[in-house]
Amino acid sequence: MDKASIFGVVAGIALVMTAILLGGSMGTFFNIQGILVVAGGTFAATSIAFPTQELKLIFPVSRRVFNDPGDEMLELSQFLIQAMGTLKRDGPVALEAIAEQAPSKPLTKGLMLIADGANARTIDEILATERKYMEEHHRVGQKIFMEMGKYAPAFGMVGTLIGLVQMLSDLSDPDAIGPAMAVALLTTFYGAVLANLIFIPMVSKLDRRVAIEVAQIELTMVGLSSMNRGDTVQILKEKLSAFLNQQGDKAEAILQAA
Amino acid sequence: MDKASIFGVVAGIALVMTAILLGGSMGTFFNIQGILVVAGGTFAATSIAFPTQELKLIFPVSRRVFNDPGDEMLELSQFLIQAMGTLKRDGPVALEAIAEQAPSKPLTKGLMLIADGANARTIDEILATERKYMEEHHRVGQKIFMEMGKYAPAFGMVGTLIGLVQMLSDLSDPDAIGPAMAVALLTTFYGAVLANLIFIPMVSKLDRRVAIEVAQIELTMVGLSSMNRGDTVQILKEKLSAFLNQQGDKAEAILQAA
Amino acid sequence: MDKASIFGVVAGIALVMTAILLGGSMGTFFNIQGILVVAGGTFAATSIAFPTQELKLIFPVSRRVFNDPGDEMLELSQFLIQAMGTLKRDGPVALEAIAEQAPSKPLTKGLMLIADGANARTIDEILATERKYMEEHHRVGQKIFMEMGKYAPAFGMVGTLIGLVQMLSDLSDPDAIGPAMAVALLTTFYGAVLANLIFIPMVSKLDRRVAIEVAQIELTMVGLSSMNRGDTVQILKEKLSAFLNQQGDKAEAILQAA
Amino acid sequence: MDKASIFGVVAGIALVMTAILLGGSMGTFFNIQGILVVAGGTFAATSIAFPTQELKLIFPVSRRVFNDPGDEMLELSQFLIQAMGTLKRDGPVALEAIAEQAPSKPLTKGLMLIADGANARTIDEILATERKYMEEHHRVGQKIFMEMGKYAPAFGMVGTLIGLVQMLSDLSDPDAIGPAMAVALLTTFYGAVLANLIFIPMVSKLDRRVAIEVAQIELTMVGLSSMNRGDTVQILKEKLSAFLNQQGDKAEAILQAA
Amino acid sequence: MDKASIFGVVAGIALVMTAILLGGSMGTFFNIQGILVVAGGTFAATSIAFPTQELKLIFPVSRRVFNDPGDEMLELSQFLIQAMGTLKRDGPVALEAIAEQAPSKPLTKGLMLIADGANARTIDEILATERKYMEEHHRVGQKIFMEMGKYAPAFGMVGTLIGLVQMLSDLSDPDAIGPAMAVALLTTFYGAVLANLIFIPMVSKLDRRVAIEVAQIELTMVGLSSMNRGDTVQILKEKLSAFLNQQGDKAEAILQAA
Repeated sequence: MDKASIFGVVAGIALVMTAILLGGSMGTFFNIQGILVVAGGTFAATSIAFPTQELKLIFPVSRRVFNDPGDEMLELSQFLIQAMGTLKRDGPVALEAIAEQAPSKPLTKGLMLIADGANARTIDEILATERKYMEEHHRVGQKIFMEMGKYAPAFGMVGTLIGLVQMLSDLSDPDAIGPAMAVALLTTFYGAVLANLIFIPMVSKLDRRVAIEVAQIELTMVGLSSMNRGDTVQILKEKLSAFLNQQGDKAEAILQAA
Repeated sequence: MDKASIFGVVAGIALVMTAILLGGSMGTFFNIQGILVVAGGTFAATSIAFPTQELKLIFPVSRRVFNDPGDEMLELSQFLIQAMGTLKRDGPVALEAIAEQAPSKPLTKGLMLIADGANARTIDEILATERKYMEEHHRVGQKIFMEMGKYAPAFGMVGTLIGLVQMLSDLSDPDAIGPAMAVALLTTFYGAVLANLIFIPMVSKLDRRVAIEVAQIELTMVGLSSMNRGDTVQILKEKLSAFLNQQGDKAEAILQAA
Repeated sequence: MDKASIFGVVAGIALVMTAILLGGSMGTFFNIQGILVVAGGTFAATSIAFPTQELKLIFPVSRRVFNDPGDEMLELSQFLIQAMGTLKRDGPVALEAIAEQAPSKPLTKGLMLIADGANARTIDEILATERKYMEEHHRVGQKIFMEMGKYAPAFGMVGTLIGLVQMLSDLSDPDAIGPAMAVALLTTFYGAVLANLIFIPMVSKLDRRVAIEVAQIELTMVGLSSMNRGDTVQILKEKLSAFLNQQGDKAEAILQAA
Repeated sequence: MDKASIFGVVAGIALVMTAILLGGSMGTFFNIQGILVVAGGTFAATSIAFPTQELKLIFPVSRRVFNDPGDEMLELSQFLIQAMGTLKRDGPVALEAIAEQAPSKPLTKGLMLIADGANARTIDEILATERKYMEEHHRVGQKIFMEMGKYAPAFGMVGTLIGLVQMLSDLSDPDAIGPAMAVALLTTFYGAVLANLIFIPMVSKLDRRVAIEVAQIELTMVGLSSMNRGDTVQILKEKLSAFLNQQGDKAEAILQAA
Repeated sequence: MDKASIFGVVAGIALVMTAILLGGSMGTFFNIQGILVVAGGTFAATSIAFPTQELKLIFPVSRRVFNDPGDEMLELSQFLIQAMGTLKRDGPVALEAIAEQAPSKPLTKGLMLIADGANARTIDEILATERKYMEEHHRVGQKIFMEMGKYAPAFGMVGTLIGLVQMLSDLSDPDAIGPAMAVALLTTFYGAVLANLIFIPMVSKLDRRVAIEVAQIELTMVGLSSMNRGDTVQILKEKLSAFLNQQGDKAEAILQAA
């Protein structure tokens, strides 16, 4: 689990509640009609905005936001260096035996293809296609939350307009004006909180997740193409270390020792 | 039909109506002058924004939003594997016989070109041009709704300004101020609902549709170029599976068994 | 003339006027000071935003919005097929005789270059440069209206601020407040109508015009390079048809019969 | 000097002043505290936003907005045609003698490099690097004004908020409310005028200037590479004319006569 | 230390304070509940928006904003020219001895690789990977502040909505309305100041820093590839000077004299 995300959601909600309680009661901020308009409107618009089969991505994608993927860059690098050793010692066919233990599916696939004698360009094309469609698949999940982050404030405004129009068309009771406006503003409040505390941060987090997965598949591609070209183990290490040199000296040392 | 879209439109309208009825009568929210300004203004601005022949795309494009295209990626892959078998067994000319049964027009065209002996680069260029202009054609349809999604709230604001100016220039009857402002706000309401429940979600849905069609034509291009290069059937399967590996293990199994 | 554009401008203005007249008199919405601020401010800001020689593009570019360019894609394709026939029958030099009748200037230039014996890469580079600077030239015209579409609402707001400040600094006459605010809001109204009924739709229309002209020059480039490579007439037809296959079966049939 | 820019600034200021004077006195619109917040806040934020050495670009870049660069495209083309003649007649070394008279520094450098016998690819790379860093340098200047165009309205809003909070916390004197709000709105007015009459148009003008300089260096690159490849003078003219064909027939005629 | 940034922060805060004190007391603008909502909400949303390990970048990245990196372009160029001399005189192996003194880590790595006999393409690929992941790493830091610059005004608005709803639901004491609205507006004020005086300028500054570092690594790549190709020292100087020619004639002179 990604602790910062859990902390963020809990802290954000606690904070908004504290701010509310410091100035009055919680009840003032609860309005079932308003919640209906904002949550329902957002959901309805999102249902129109995506094909049925893509809408189902909402749940697995939501889970991804709170999962800590761990950083497999170093693990992948170590496995690639080991596989290079196997290749130099025992020839391509020996890669078949170790491919299954590779820490990622694209790496397994790549090693199998080398073992099968596929040429370097073919392997590169296959992995590039996989990277592209993996990225596109994830971008769809991200896009769903991006759209929700736009619809929530929009339906917040729609709800406020409904409340204002109703209030303004009957001003006979001056004492009712204030509370009616308060209720009207609640939907704008719901929309702003939903968008800025949930949907928009999720879009940003999913963006980071995709970046990490793309980097892993790119490191895999560089490693496999290095094996195909018959680079020395030292050159392979230099190539892989270029991916890792933002992770500090420790990662570098582990890599050089592999 | 794409059920989620139908559900979204019905649910969205029902929801907004419920919210209105919970707080007053439906009549308050109906104003013919306001509907005139928002719908008419949006339509007028859109008429200026696109050449006459492109405006006609509104209707076919609207239909596309509610149609479920189905996913032909797997079907295309199976046909490509079968065509590769035919090519290896009976030579290029035999492709002419099966080309007509291909599940998409670009695939038919590509197989005919291989049968005619066109070189690989020519086939690739022709399909790339087709993909480009197919995409551009669809983007125009998407753009029409994108513009409408901008004009609707803008003319909503224009209508509100007209109402406010008229109300403010004659404040002699204090009791008329509230209802007049309510009516003025209605156009903003119309613009916001039209844009956020209809036009903007349609833009997003059309974007997904184009992405699916582009992926299909790209899979076709990879398959045809694999046939041209004389890859083994196994390599062709690996290349096609890179497009499908976001669709789960079932698609993978069907592909390997093809 | 592009009828939809004319219709759009007329309908839009008529609509706004109807909406005004339904709720009061036209006079309320006419304010010379406000028109001065919005139109003048937009014009002044645009004068700063573009070099003097580019500002002169406003008039020819405005005309382009209302002109119907017609679709020369099919005509260009037919001429290219005919020229291919001439080339195959009578050799490159014969192209000089027919180049002048070509339906577009870039095609004339390209045929002259083939007749002169220029190599394929040179022709491609020259037409690519021409396409780039043609596009850039048109984008400047489009940009002028894009900027105007931003300045008009901005100076609308400036005018409203001027009116509000003047009204607020002297509240001694309560009866004057309403009408003064009405007048202040008028500039916002002018800015919104100008931007959304004139400038922003023009930007979109110009964008479509440029797309059509770019497609024509790209079709020309593909055709010329096909002539240079010595493709068969059938391959040339296939290449050209990829540009046209969004225009329906009729265009396809005319092309195949050419 | 670029007359349109001078005219724009003068006209814009005159216009805003006229609008003010038509409805009241100039004094109402002068508030030293407000000018302090908007101008000072914009300046402070810009100081944080750019490294010290880049901030110094404000003055030379401001001057560039009002300078009329003239169009050297034609002059560069004529010189390139003349240099091609020298190259064909007297060989590469003769270029050294005329390089100093070239109308632009990159052209001088390129001719010197041809005279030194540098190969075509090296010359192209050097000029491409120069174009890239020239453009990046200018984009920094443009970016400074772009940021200012964002900060000015933002600090206008900050000033208005300060005024509103101060007014609202002490409502004991009803007569002071109007004038206090007028003063509060002034900073929003300052921010909007500064941004829309000065900063945002300057960004657009600088964008045009960069486009013109990039086109000149690209024309230079095409000309030099044409010299390196040994094209005929006629082919060089065709290549250069592709850059100029938006400038009308006169430029074309001068070029062909060169 | 980058003096302009320090000056900007100090000047900006001083200015806002002065504006406040000119119109009233500092106390009116201090509200602990409001600070809680804006700062806390921004922090909570940012915690959700980034993986835990990337959130830790906030502190090192903040420091980078106020550090003056100095311009190492000239230093790098001089070292490259000197290394070219060593290479020509003593052969590749001699580079190993001087590599450690290189002014940047990528340059050290590149010289070591030349000394090891790695081929030109391998070196280029390794440095390109390093540049890409260095840039991506820095963009993450920049993105954190970009998100903060969006959340701060959003939670400012959320706080204002909370205050308004609370005020409007109980209008029994007319004297409390003004001060309650003043307090409600404070969170919008906090959000606007935080975003426009701190977060948004930091994003711009970090953007400049990345641009400078990318330029340095690109100059290194051009220099190393020039060494690999065996260019003359004069050609190397010309290539490097293309990077520096926006720094004025002094840098040029130093370079030519190196």
